[in-house]
Formats: sequence, structure tokens, C-alpha cells
Amino acid sequence: MRPYVIVNVAVSADGKLSTRERRQVKISGKEDFDRVDEIKAGCDAIMVGIGTVLADDPSLTIKSADRIAERVRNGKPEHPVRIVVDSQARTPPDAKILHKGPGLRIIAVSLAAPEENISALKNHAEIIQAGEVTVDLPVLLTKLAEKGIKRLMVEGGGTLIWGMLSAGLVDELTMFVGNIIIGGKDAPTLADGTGYVLESDFPVLERMDVIPMEEGVLIHWKVRK
Amino acid sequence: MRPYVIVNVAVSADGKLSTRERRQVKISGKEDFDRVDEIKAGCDAIMVGIGTVLADDPSLTIKSADRIAERVRNGKPEHPVRIVVDSQARTPPDAKILHKGPGLRIIAVSLAAPEENISALKNHAEIIQAGEVTVDLPVLLTKLAEKGIKRLMVEGGGTLIWGMLSAGLVDELTMFVGNIIIGGKDAPTLADGTGYVLESDFPVLERMDVIPMEEGVLIHWKVRK
Ligand SMILES: NC(=O)c1ccc[n+]([C@@H]2O[C@H](COP(=O)([O-])OP(=O)(O)OC[C@H]3O[C@@H](n4cnc5c(N)ncnc54)[C@H](OP(=O)(O)O)[C@@H]3O)[C@@H](O)[C@H]2O)c1
Ligand SMILES: NC(=O)c1ccc[n+]([C@@H]2O[C@H](COP(=O)([O-])OP(=O)(O)OC[C@H]3O[C@@H](n4cnc5c(N)ncnc54)[C@H](OP(=O)(O)O)[C@@H]3O)[C@@H](O)[C@H]2O)c1
Repeated sequence: MRPYVIVNVAVSADGKLSTRERRQVKISGKEDFDRVDEIKAGCDAIMVGIGTVLADDPSLTIKSADRIAERVRNGKPEHPVRIVVDSQARTPPDAKILHKGPGLRIIAVSLAAPEENISALKNHAEIIQAGEVTVDLPVLLTKLAEKGIKRLMVEGGGTLIWGMLSAGLVDELTMFVGNIIIGGKDAPTLADGTGYVLESDFPVLERMDVIPMEEGVLIHWKVRK
Repeated sequence: MRPYVIVNVAVSADGKLSTRERRQVKISGKEDFDRVDEIKAGCDAIMVGIGTVLADDPSLTIKSADRIAERVRNGKPEHPVRIVVDSQARTPPDAKILHKGPGLRIIAVSLAAPEENISALKNHAEIIQAGEVTVDLPVLLTKLAEKGIKRLMVEGGGTLIWGMLSAGLVDELTMFVGNIIIGGKDAPTLADGTGYVLESDFPVLERMDVIPMEEGVLIHWKVRK
């Protein structure tokens, strides 16, 4: 048992998540932000990697007051559970994700996380241990399902998405392709990590919707099992 | 004066041109191959980087007999001029591009290209020198225009496309986005090289057509000037 997993990202036309300096860039506009807010509001939890927390310091809250109100009417917490995949518990104790808005946070760490890092975080977040050196994602997802998380959105970055895809843990992928070129062999992409070498290993997708949006294109894929 | 430049590539859904081992992979199918053959047949020349010659050993010929016949009827050579951007003249003398089918080949080298490499190639191709250490692409394109090349297709790879984009030499970009994930932080992407750091430097594209094709999506962009 694991949650249903939706990956959502914005990429440049050349497939980058940000610049080689990993500085967050504006790839999409208001309409896409609103679309993402809607997906978030429909999820029980949102997950990012520690690389994204350190680079962007996101809060991962829902922005629309109407959507928050609707969640509350439906007996849900205002914001989805916010999860950081962070083997060494390096999340800064003053990270926005730990302080902005009410609701549960989870820091997923490995058994190798230094005790003092965990201590500094455990007043702000629940700590889940899974994996020896890096976070064991299948184990983590099982634990999340046990907590009642049925629908999980993964926001990035490319290292975490690679980890999820290569472990066979992704059901859907929505990508907004923006009308810019970022370039750079060292800039992060949608799926980084080691990558595949054999064609027989490539995850195969099924094209769902293709929607011209703003100045870019929204592509919605399902992962074929 | 420079040729009108069209970049055409096939990328995986995660923006890769091939695996980290740079082994060519099947990203698109027959319909897309035929579309690319049509673009080629409408061009005066086709250009690739030396990285692509060494990795894929492409012939860059037109495949359709009808299109070849039509070119000949119109007083054109059977195949477009085939160009390799290759600072050090490292193109292997037995490369397919130099032997398959009739027609002019050009190896664009820098002033740093070893004389013996040039000697080994000059029976098979015309050598154009442009640039001190790497090929000076704006100078090369001016020389190609002087030879009557009006329409140039660039097939890749990502390093050459980055060179062309960052020098402001691209007019159109067509990308077939395939329904596979290749992954890998070291796998080549549509625009590699150093990449941009400042948002104000990003080339901005204009979305032309978005066409679901085979199991992927064809996106046609123009580069905004
Ligand atoms: N455009 C967008 O939509 C978007 C969205 C999100 C992020 N981004 C960009 O993405 C960049 C950050 O991406 P990133 O790839 O550097 O970092 P990331 O994917 O956010 O985080 C990756 C880190 O997670 C940790 N991790 C632990 N266990 C893992 C496992 N099993 N699999 C994978 N990762 C595991 C690893 O660090 P430890 O070993 O230290 O734990 C790993 O380095 C930033 O530039 C950000 O702006 C863009
Ligand atoms: N999917 C597709 O549509 C597609 C199409 C083509 C290629 N590919 C893949 O792309 C990969 C090869 O790409 P790549 O990036 O390694 O090589 P590349 O772009 O084909 O060639 C790059 C090389 O061109 C030379 N060069 C000389 N002057 C240059 C300049 N001003 N700007 C840029 N390059 C210049 C440089 O080598 P020197 O300094 O030695 O001259 C440079 O390393 C292969 O894996 C291939 O399969 C895929």
C-alpha cells in the first residue's frame, strides 16, 4: 500500500527546472500557479527534496482562501501535510516550510541522520526514519499510507523525482513546458540522478492531455505499469 | 547575412537527447522520422556537432526516394550539404556522413585543428576554418550563406544547439517530446554548454503549433527576436 503519486513541475523548453546555480526561475505564470494550487488542494500531502528546500525555501501552503475553506468544510486540515525527503536532517530549523501556516510537517530522514540535527527539528516536524544512508522511498511511502495519506504530490526537484520514478512510485506526471531556454549541462532537469542506460528500463508514459496554456504547453502523462 | 536556422530534435519527456552513455535511443517513430525527412528535404544543409558524429555516426541523407527525385527535378543536389562542427577535425575519415550518398560535405574546423587531421579529411569534404580554438559559429554561418545556403537544419547535439542558441543564431525549434523517461544528470539535453544564469538572458520562444503525434507531442517554437 502506498499513496497515489502525482509529480508536477514546470520546465523550460530545454527541459530544465532552474539554472545551473539552482536559483528558482519563473517558468510559468498565474494560470499555471492556480492550476498547481488546485492539484495541491486535492492532495493529502506535498513532498519535496532537501535540495529544493535549500535552493528555494518554499512554504508549500495552499494559496487560495477558497480552497483552504473548502478543505476545512470537508474536514481536512487547511494545508496538506508537508514532507521533506532529507537523509541527513539538514532542513534549516527556520525554513519556511516549518513555520508558514498551520498543519503537520514530516521530515523523512535516514538512519544516518545526526542526532543533533533531528533534535533541532523535532519541535517543528514529525521525524520518520526510513533507509540506512539515503531515504528508502518505498518504505517511506508505506509509512505515509499508514498515516492515511492517500494522494501525494511531488514538487521536485529532479533528484527526488528520479528517485521516485526509478523506484516505480509515480502514477502521473504533469509538466508545464515554458517558452524559455535556460541551457546548461549542469542545470537540474525533471529526472536527474544516475539515469537509465538500457532502453528496456525506461519508464513508459501514456499521453493524457496536451493543453496550450499561457505561452507554454501543459502535458499530462500517466506512467504505464 | 546568415541562413535561416531550424533546430529539430527528439527528446524524452524528461528533456534528454540520449542516455548518459550518449548512446542513441529510439525516442520517436516512423511518423516523426518522416516529418524530419520532409524538413531535411526542404533545407540546403544539415549540421551536427562532432559529438553526434562520434556517438551516432549518422549519414544525414534524405531517406525518401520521392523527396530526392523532387529535389533533383528542382535542380538541387540529391541531399542537402552535410556539415560537421568539429574544431579539431576529429571526424573519423570512415564516418558514414563522408561516404553515404553523393553530395558536398563540409567540416567546419578552428585554426587549432591539427594539420594531419585536416589532410585526412580533405579528400572527402570541404574544410572551412572559422574561429581560433572552437568554431566561431557566426563566422561559419556567414560563410555558409556566401555559399548559397539559405536554409539550414541543425540536428544536435545539445552542445552545438547551446552554441547556436547562445549566439542568437536560431530561428525555429521543433521538438518531438517522446513518452519515455531517460533520466540522469549527465545525460545530454536540448541545450547543454554553460547555460544561462540571468533570467534576462534567456532566449524567449513563441509557441507555434502543438500537435499530439504518435505517443508523444510535437512542439514547434519560434525564437522571439
Ligand atoms: N521548476 C520546478 O517545478 C521545480 C520544482 C522543484 C524544484 N525545482 C528546482 O530543483 C532544484 C533542486 O533539485 P535537486 O535535484 O537539487 O534536489 P531535490 O530533488 O529537491 O533533493 C534531492 C535530495 O534529496 C535527498 N534524498 C534523500 N533520499 C533520496 C532518495 N531516495 N532519492 C532521491 N533523493 C533523496 C538527497 O539529499 P540528502 O542525501 O542530503 O538527503 C538528494 O540530494 C532547485 O534548483 C529548485 O529550484 C524546480
Ligand atoms: N535526440 C536527438 O534528436 C539527437 C540529435 C542529435 C544528437 N543527439 C545526441 O546528442 C549527443 C551528442 O551531443 P553532444 O552535446 O555531446 O555533442 P554535439 O553537440 O553533437 O557536438 C558538440 C561539439 O561540437 C564542437 N564545437 C565546436 N565549436 C563549437 C561551438 N561553437 N559550439 C558548440 N560546439 C562546438 C565541440 O567539440 P570540439 O571542441 O572537439 O570541436 C563540441 O564538444 C549524442 O548522445 C547523440 O545521440 C540526439
